Amino acid sequence: MRIPLSTLHQQLKTILLSLGFTEHRADLCAQIFTNNSRDGVYSHGLNRFPTFVEHIKKGRTVPNAEPQLISSNGIIETWDGQLGPGMYNATVGMNRAIEISKDKGIGWVTIKNTNHWMRAGTYGWQAADAGSIGICFTNAIAGMPAWGGTTPVLGNNPLVIAVPRKEGHLVLDMAMSQFSYGKMQEYEFRKEQLPVAGGYDEQGNLTTDPSAIRKTKRALPIGNWKGSGLAMMLDILLVAMSGGRSTAEITASGFEYGVTQTFIAIHQPHYHEALINETINYTKGSDPVFYPGERTLSTRLLSEADGVLVDETVWQRVQTLNS
Amino acid sequence: MRIPLSTLHQQLKTILLSLGFTEHRADLCAQIFTNNSRDGVYSHGLNRFPTFVEHIKKGRTVPNAEPQLISSNGIIETWDGQLGPGMYNATVGMNRAIEISKDKGIGWVTIKNTNHWMRAGTYGWQAADAGSIGICFTNAIAGMPAWGGTTPVLGNNPLVIAVPRKEGHLVLDMAMSQFSYGKMQEYEFRKEQLPVAGGYDEQGNLTTDPSAIRKTKRALPIGNWKGSGLAMMLDILLVAMSGGRSTAEITASGFEYGVTQTFIAIHQPHYHEALINETINYTKGSDPVFYPGERTLSTRLLSEADGVLVDETVWQRVQTLNS
Repeated sequence: MRIPLSTLHQQLKTILLSLGFTEHRADLCAQIFTNNSRDGVYSHGLNRFPTFVEHIKKGRTVPNAEPQLISSNGIIETWDGQLGPGMYNATVGMNRAIEISKDKGIGWVTIKNTNHWMRAGTYGWQAADAGSIGICFTNAIAGMPAWGGTTPVLGNNPLVIAVPRKEGHLVLDMAMSQFSYGKMQEYEFRKEQLPVAGGYDEQGNLTTDPSAIRKTKRALPIGNWKGSGLAMMLDILLVAMSGGRSTAEITASGFEYGVTQTFIAIHQPHYHEALINETINYTKGSDPVFYPGERTLSTRLLSEADGVLVDETVWQRVQTLNS
Repeated sequence: MRIPLSTLHQQLKTILLSLGFTEHRADLCAQIFTNNSRDGVYSHGLNRFPTFVEHIKKGRTVPNAEPQLISSNGIIETWDGQLGPGMYNATVGMNRAIEISKDKGIGWVTIKNTNHWMRAGTYGWQAADAGSIGICFTNAIAGMPAWGGTTPVLGNNPLVIAVPRKEGHLVLDMAMSQFSYGKMQEYEFRKEQLPVAGGYDEQGNLTTDPSAIRKTKRALPIGNWKGSGLAMMLDILLVAMSGGRSTAEITASGFEYGVTQTFIAIHQPHYHEALINETINYTKGSDPVFYPGERTLSTRLLSEADGVLVDETVWQRVQTLNS
């Protein structure tokens, strides 16, 4: 079913207010969940909201904690997120990176002790909307074996690269597994198979069955050994820049909280937009090729016109959360 | 067969001197080719040398061109490589990034009009040897269709992330295709199939036959649509930061030259090495898992002890090049 964006936003905001969020934070966090569903990233929109609420109730997310600056050299900053809401901390982190980039050209902000930021791409769009190139990445609880192993030891550690453009920003938002667990859950909800193999079943065979992979936690890294290496290096970069918790430590804690995230913004007088457009045209050619961010934009327009698509069961469940 | 490192280096240097390289450049470029073979990256060591010589003879690589600074804000620099040898320009570019990082924390250098740098990882090792984190990427001639298309429009645009460490640097060096064409050529030389599907054959089926993929130029991006998006975004970043040639323009020129490359270095007082080691130990666990760079180091030690492995046919061919 489709519901108006404002209805979804208001409902989520009301629940967050009832959990003790300040007006500003409730509004911002509800907006991010709403926008994620609006843009078609259902796994990190409404569908994830009940889990977010659970983390708050369990005290793993502190509604009104304020991130604290630990160190700065004027370009590189390290912050402690104080276990505040991930979307709030990430917005603050990317904002700082953007501010620094407008002054110095580059801002590089790492936040430790923060929480799941929901859709990674949110903060890429944020940077691009502010006219800066945005790059960000996070670590996560282990959900993927390293190449050569069978035990989940790697997070799927999403990576975002966003470049601003008048006709629509380019925003790449990719997890290191072929499918994020959120995406696999969507296929499971719809009782569909994955379009390509996404991991291993209990017999150790590659499979397109999302339930089997969610069970074994043996998601397939993109490009096999390559995504395995990239997931590990992003975790290492996060730790090296901040001393924050690694996937190893997050996993040992038993819950996905207290993660580490980096926000990079680059600001330039211009971005050679004519050349970027030439590259897009060349890459598309006459084939049905989409640039990263293109389909997000068309889903967004549809949601704004016709309302946002929600899973009826989840929507009903969420409506009971503020009691 | 195995030959001493010094023999390989001397042979390559002699040829470069005969092509008009200055003593310093001949020495540096020969050393990089030698080190690439030494480290087991045969596709971009000796095996690639004849192609490098051909580019010089055709005037697409200018032996003694010196890169020129175009713009600088103190942290972000843009250079014009003047079509000099890629390995020389890349060494200069990463050196600049390292110098800036030691002063400002981060250096971000983009070079346009440069040439193939051979092994991407070389410049990651360079940064890590200098005590900085190194990140670099390049664009390339189109050799891979974008997701949804069948015409090659994407370069395989290698990405490197290197983090220094006392017990051995972590260096990830990955192209955006499941296998680089250089790597596929190695399998072809050895008349072996690829270990996993690496692209499409003429009938449009996924195949492990390196010759079939080298023919169709339909290499498979890592993670299907994900590597396709990442390859495109790296090209866009390079263009946005420098106005240099994109994969579109390189491909239109008919030859892989005049490419664009970015070198990023980050310098920190320390990199939380104990936590990095903890992450490595956790990721390895009891499984046969290697951290990025681990096997490079063991191949290097073997080459230094027993000599570097060379393909006899290529070695004989190279020995005739300085006549």
